[in-house]
Amino acid sequence: MTLPLGYAYATTYAGIRQAPKNDVALIVSGMPANAAAVFTQNRVQAAPVRLSRRHLKLSKGLAGAILVNAGNANCATRTGDAVALATCKAAAKLLQMPVVQVLPASTGVIGVELDARKITGALPELVGKLRTDAFDEAANAILTTDLVPKTAFAEVKLRRGTVRVAGMTKGSGMIQPLMATTLGFVLTDAQIPGAALRAMLKRGVERSYNRLSVDGDTSTNDTLALLANGASGVRPDPKEMPKVEEAIAGVMESLARAIARDGEGAKKLITIDVAGAASAEGAGRMARAIANSPLVKTAVAGSDPNWGRILCAAGNAGVAFDPGKTDIYLQGVLVCKQGLAAPFSEEELKARLDAPECEIRVTVRGKGKGRSRFWTCDLTEGYIRINASYRT
Amino acid sequence: MTLPLGYAYATTYAGIRQAPKNDVALIVSGMPANAAAVFTQNRVQAAPVRLSRRHLKLSKGLAGAILVNAGNANCATRTGDAVALATCKAAAKLLQMPVVQVLPASTGVIGVELDARKITGALPELVGKLRTDAFDEAANAILTTDLVPKTAFAEVKLRRGTVRVAGMTKGSGMIQPLMATTLGFVLTDAQIPGAALRAMLKRGVERSYNRLSVDGDTSTNDTLALLANGASGVRPDPKEMPKVEEAIAGVMESLARAIARDGEGAKKLITIDVAGAASAEGAGRMARAIANSPLVKTAVAGSDPNWGRILCAAGNAGVAFDPGKTDIYLQGVLVCKQGLAAPFSEEELKARLDAPECEIRVTVRGKGKGRSRFWTCDLTEGYIRINASYRT
Repeated sequence: MTLPLGYAYATTYAGIRQAPKNDVALIVSGMPANAAAVFTQNRVQAAPVRLSRRHLKLSKGLAGAILVNAGNANCATRTGDAVALATCKAAAKLLQMPVVQVLPASTGVIGVELDARKITGALPELVGKLRTDAFDEAANAILTTDLVPKTAFAEVKLRRGTVRVAGMTKGSGMIQPLMATTLGFVLTDAQIPGAALRAMLKRGVERSYNRLSVDGDTSTNDTLALLANGASGVRPDPKEMPKVEEAIAGVMESLARAIARDGEGAKKLITIDVAGAASAEGAGRMARAIANSPLVKTAVAGSDPNWGRILCAAGNAGVAFDPGKTDIYLQGVLVCKQGLAAPFSEEELKARLDAPECEIRVTVRGKGKGRSRFWTCDLTEGYIRINASYRT
Repeated sequence: MTLPLGYAYATTYAGIRQAPKNDVALIVSGMPANAAAVFTQNRVQAAPVRLSRRHLKLSKGLAGAILVNAGNANCATRTGDAVALATCKAAAKLLQMPVVQVLPASTGVIGVELDARKITGALPELVGKLRTDAFDEAANAILTTDLVPKTAFAEVKLRRGTVRVAGMTKGSGMIQPLMATTLGFVLTDAQIPGAALRAMLKRGVERSYNRLSVDGDTSTNDTLALLANGASGVRPDPKEMPKVEEAIAGVMESLARAIARDGEGAKKLITIDVAGAASAEGAGRMARAIANSPLVKTAVAGSDPNWGRILCAAGNAGVAFDPGKTDIYLQGVLVCKQGLAAPFSEEELKARLDAPECEIRVTVRGKGKGRSRFWTCDLTEGYIRINASYRT
């Protein structure tokens, strides 16, 4: 699949993380792109989050570059704002674009000062080696505890030509995006007006990143940016917009699923579908409660068809429903019918639960139209091992 | 310390749990006691919870016996209501008291039918061997994954004589009481009118069980009952009531702390104090968010003074505060001053974090009067081991 036209990428190791693995990435659009972004709803917000928000406002939704570092969140740091601004200024100067068109993003440990010189010192090299085919390299450089890079691609044939979408994301812990998530960058070469782009991002986030949780912790640095630089020369006509939006949202969904699958210590991707609720919002809250229940997640880790924990977790969502009219399916097998144990072969289901994907389906009334899908992962001893010794 | 007068206890193994360990307990008051109880707020409520609530209402707040079983929650079961009622009826008949004065309680696996005959068959033996000194035996019989029994005692000398309080509780997983908790029974021989007793219970729960979380999962069976049978013959005068209430609340606090300390897989009791918030409710939400953050709990498990995770978790409580005016203390050591890293010896603090108790103190503004205390435990690989194979 071809990458979106008009974007170039470069990465290097700037000595921010200890392991000698690329930790800075620069994403540049050859022409100013319409940009939309959503950010963490955590009350504690990292300096790059605050600055990106300001830059998008001042640039009236135009972005020419994204400057990302991994290994340091630049959050709760004395010099955070100055560091974020200095690195954007240095990038803007080298790229000959207004500083407000540079969006900074950081991920890593909180509360450790980030040395701006590590990034500004690396920038000449980065700008010098920008390449249109280094997308995967960039997707690798933004990772922290991730085991695998996370990318997704789409191509849409329209009447006037083809447009492309490519997305990269990172994150496997401190994941419960609300309105946004961990870092994610989605690029397209379609021509999409700013207002339409923002609306697409908002709707796309609702069905992707906002339906994802690894451990219920929302990070201080969550950023998801969507850029449309129009380099394809193709402006979708109004009737074609849904097709383009579907491609963009599909890329975002793939990225969100990839995060859940690579959740810290995870061995299984869990997809939770709640249907029949009075409202989609209620279904979403129930799905999230199930996704965030450590008891559900450990049961899946142990391939234990313990549906009582799923029913109990659903009951904790603060949403009114009748447990006596609730059905639960595990891997497509009915395990709880109208709130009571359904007959199923425990041995057989245990074997099916050993698969790398687990599907939990909850129908709370059967006739309501509120439904929601949510992704998470199982909770294993690996999560503990990773997080009991992250810094040290 | 002397047990409250006028109560007797008996336990036996009725074959409800697989391990041959006592699984039924009967607590009887020689005279009808004023009783108050709080129950789970989970939308899914076990049959004994529903029946206890009805019995308390029909008996106008009088209770003569508590019939508890461990190993089966009698929740989401076809015959749940009938089983709970049949066991209460059998107990009432043998004890010659109205059935509405018997409070049933169950704890254990959800969704498995409970055979009433196991309990009704054991009742003659139980009633035959009631003893006033078998309190500890009863406290043992109600345990499930608990490693240690959890009891607390108090004695209050009043003008007209001495009154006594004794409490027992269970639980180490599926713990985040809201208005109530897992099973807890607090008995006193003081004469306390029903209305005063209910008010005491409500206030006591607010500062004990409702400030406790092991894994953020609220169970379907949470029940906390407070009985006052007046067997001491001592009626506290109005001025002495606060002293009695303090003793009762103190027993409840001890029980809540004991649950956190014995949280599944836990090695450390964590006490979280949030002060300086605009309201006590806001402080409570922040403390709860910190207590429920798996990243904070794993950091404590690893003795990692990773205060950034504490600040991040506080930021997820949905409570407005200024991170730039927030101080964080770990084991009394200032680790974050006004939102930024404070200088401290990492080696020294790591050693202090190896202690069995961890104190996290967060001051969010310094001058607000909202404060809250919360208890939880660290999150270790033991939690995963226990819960990935609970049923099987």
